[in-house]
Amino acid sequence: MKLLTQEEAQNVDIELFNDYKFSVDQLMEVAGLSVAVAVGKTYKAGNVLVCCGPGNNGGDGLVAARHLLLFGFRPTIYYPKRPNKTLFNNLVTQCQKMEIEFLDGTQLSAVTDLEAKYDLIVDALFGFSFKGSPRPPFDDVLSKLKESRLPICSVDVPSVGWDVERGDPNGIQPDMLISLTAPKLCARYFNGRVHYLGGRFVPNTLQNKYQMDLPPYPGTDCVMDITKLSKI
Amino acid sequence: MKLLTQEEAQNVDIELFNDYKFSVDQLMEVAGLSVAVAVGKTYKAGNVLVCCGPGNNGGDGLVAARHLLLFGFRPTIYYPKRPNKTLFNNLVTQCQKMEIEFLDGTQLSAVTDLEAKYDLIVDALFGFSFKGSPRPPFDDVLSKLKESRLPICSVDVPSVGWDVERGDPNGIQPDMLISLTAPKLCARYFNGRVHYLGGRFVPNTLQNKYQMDLPPYPGTDCVMDITKLSKI
Repeated sequence: MKLLTQEEAQNVDIELFNDYKFSVDQLMEVAGLSVAVAVGKTYKAGNVLVCCGPGNNGGDGLVAARHLLLFGFRPTIYYPKRPNKTLFNNLVTQCQKMEIEFLDGTQLSAVTDLEAKYDLIVDALFGFSFKGSPRPPFDDVLSKLKESRLPICSVDVPSVGWDVERGDPNGIQPDMLISLTAPKLCARYFNGRVHYLGGRFVPNTLQNKYQMDLPPYPGTDCVMDITKLSKI
Repeated sequence: MKLLTQEEAQNVDIELFNDYKFSVDQLMEVAGLSVAVAVGKTYKAGNVLVCCGPGNNGGDGLVAARHLLLFGFRPTIYYPKRPNKTLFNNLVTQCQKMEIEFLDGTQLSAVTDLEAKYDLIVDALFGFSFKGSPRPPFDDVLSKLKESRLPICSVDVPSVGWDVERGDPNGIQPDMLISLTAPKLCARYFNGRVHYLGGRFVPNTLQNKYQMDLPPYPGTDCVMDITKLSKI
């Protein structure tokens, strides 16, 4: 299984949208669903804090929170920077109308509070497009997620401190990684317990073009456990 | 489990779009995925003819065809009346770029040809909004689907000859029905082998308002077999 560079991941996205004419809504729904399914298959339904960043990775998180609620989890959403775009506004409305709580303010509460209130954190802060150092309030999130002993599930790329290609041994160490469409290069450095592949929508034509060499998903499942495969 | 009237089904849709701010793309993706999953769980991967009508039911069919391809089926799409809207044009492009064959023309070939070429028919012709008698070319489709001995999987409402509320013993007799969001009244008259519920996106708030009384989906599954439940 090949791991994608940042540029390859970006080009796959561009082709999916420009050539295959997928809408962001469509693919985000399938991606977010697969995040929720992977979480639901791995953890007991409990209180989950879904941390959403300002881009598409955050959108995946909002979708995942909605499906997690349907799976019996009790999600709370932390979404400090909300882009004023119809897609994201609608995703927020969907969650609000489903009575999912949003945390107020931009600061997360103290780590001890987080540990008392939640069983699990979904890290949907930054995806494969992110470069540079996180600015406030995400620098605060970084330190709290690093400090917390709660299990963290990272969506596509462990957000905080990690480079899409080079990883970072000093970044957060998620318990679970859910790679979307195909694992990115940084997945080599993932040392957590479980690695899932999700986002089962990549056309074979595109898989072949980028030589993704994805293993076959089992049956009609929308996620596949690649923990063993990715450690080879 | 309550069965929805046509008016209730229409109102649920209106609320999902207007109040909950779901996009058609989003819900159609989840609905079409659940159709494909139900088919994939019931039939051996084979040649499947997906018959798509001019409305949203046809859109569900286009989405289902795409996922069926990813599940190892060999779908062919019959889509004689295509609305000139971005959503539907894009769904067609997605299938075409994934090299799914579309039948030319508005007439289906002879029933014997269909039976020779396909193992299965997905009926995504008309949904719960349809009223009246099917006009050409759908009257032709009606007679061919009725005459054919291939198993038919109907999406939400058996399209041809059935009324959403009153059913029709003279209509097609599908082998499988996949009810979306909640079964419609006509499901009472379904005498086929398998009945699935799909479209796991209905918020509890809305389920309660319409007293849908849906049984709980198992785990993280996007479909549930309600054959036994719906025969009580």
